[in-house]
Amino acid sequence: MQRLLGNLIVAGALLAAASVHGEDNVTRHGLEDSDFPISLAVETGPQAKTLYLSGTVPEIADESADESAVAAYGDMETQSRSVLTSIAEKLEGLGYEMGDVVMMHAYLVPNPDTGELDFDGFMNAYTEFFGTDDQPNLPARSAVPVPQLANPGWLIEIEVIAAK
Amino acid sequence: MQRLLGNLIVAGALLAAASVHGEDNVTRHGLEDSDFPISLAVETGPQAKTLYLSGTVPEIADESADESAVAAYGDMETQSRSVLTSIAEKLEGLGYEMGDVVMMHAYLVPNPDTGELDFDGFMNAYTEFFGTDDQPNLPARSAVPVPQLANPGWLIEIEVIAAK
Amino acid sequence: MQRLLGNLIVAGALLAAASVHGEDNVTRHGLEDSDFPISLAVETGPQAKTLYLSGTVPEIADESADESAVAAYGDMETQSRSVLTSIAEKLEGLGYEMGDVVMMHAYLVPNPDTGELDFDGFMNAYTEFFGTDDQPNLPARSAVPVPQLANPGWLIEIEVIAAK
Repeated sequence: MQRLLGNLIVAGALLAAASVHGEDNVTRHGLEDSDFPISLAVETGPQAKTLYLSGTVPEIADESADESAVAAYGDMETQSRSVLTSIAEKLEGLGYEMGDVVMMHAYLVPNPDTGELDFDGFMNAYTEFFGTDDQPNLPARSAVPVPQLANPGWLIEIEVIAAK
Repeated sequence: MQRLLGNLIVAGALLAAASVHGEDNVTRHGLEDSDFPISLAVETGPQAKTLYLSGTVPEIADESADESAVAAYGDMETQSRSVLTSIAEKLEGLGYEMGDVVMMHAYLVPNPDTGELDFDGFMNAYTEFFGTDDQPNLPARSAVPVPQLANPGWLIEIEVIAAK
Repeated sequence: MQRLLGNLIVAGALLAAASVHGEDNVTRHGLEDSDFPISLAVETGPQAKTLYLSGTVPEIADESADESAVAAYGDMETQSRSVLTSIAEKLEGLGYEMGDVVMMHAYLVPNPDTGELDFDGFMNAYTEFFGTDDQPNLPARSAVPVPQLANPGWLIEIEVIAAK
């Protein structure tokens, strides 16, 4: 009887540990027939904590430029790298990391001068943070073109949900 | 004592079963004073698993057409049906179904030739998948017009969150 | 033995109570070096319930105006206040309150007559509901400009996720 109870307590403790630290809290499902660096879907389990991060915008790259012009923030690749660097720093400050991102909304603006949406520039920066040897985890993602953002100089705003 | 312990074990087993298979994991709240086929809100409980699916875009409908033209993917109704069919297939492959969708973001593009947003075409396809006799469950939803998507031929991209 | 078992049962009951009513279900992380009234991030714990609310649009303010014109719904501040009032009412009807909002997507349309996005008008209404003495809780947020909404008279649609 005592052994049974002891086993129950041990089992309970293991279960609690698994709940809090379990590697099953987040499950990533890859795309089929594609090596595009996003997940088909990401699943979070009942024991996962979920972190909603406010949309992040680029830092100023050139202080001499007009603060509401693209020149102040750089091209799409520069702005994307700035945004993703900020997100990585914020996540770290909150006890998460880029590998915990489960969902990403990337709001992308066509360059006001050319009307072109520089998707490649965005992807160049994105692939420095996701799907690397150091950080192989890929989020589910939607890339959503928008006509502008709150500041006319911003070409990108990224919002992520992380879980662990 | 043994009976008490036995009861505890049974209670624990029942609790675990309820956690995993409980019908209370997702609660749908209908609109008031409207038969519009979306939920006012959908609630997920602590034991729910949540699945974030990447944004899904239409399949090519006409291989003879320019791959970056609307003609290649069809009108809004055709594209919406293609996207929702793909989402249903992806969900099934992951152990979910359309009835598990709790939230939908539909990103809709006005037809580049006419400037008109074909909301009716979207709804015609949507109502084949949600609010039917076979599949009565309705998601919470936001329909978000955008100026374009990553491919100029796409009129719609849909992203869903499922839970069970 | 019985005392041990009794303690286990009490501990279990306390744990269950903490799970259901715990104040740790939602954790808000403030912005650093800024008093802008949004959270840097909001975290929900494993025991949180999550509520996805469909996108909410403004009520008609002037019944004499054309139902598809901005005049029928008012300026951005009026429309934003209408939307947030509706959201507060919906949340209350579902057993939640504004202070439970963890994530907000605000889809904002530039005024069709002027081309200007009235972000200040939106913020004037927003700050009546979030960051007040009565309701200090701030959501994570993304403000997403869009070219239009389903009705050309609407300047704003807001979608929230609440948790408790």
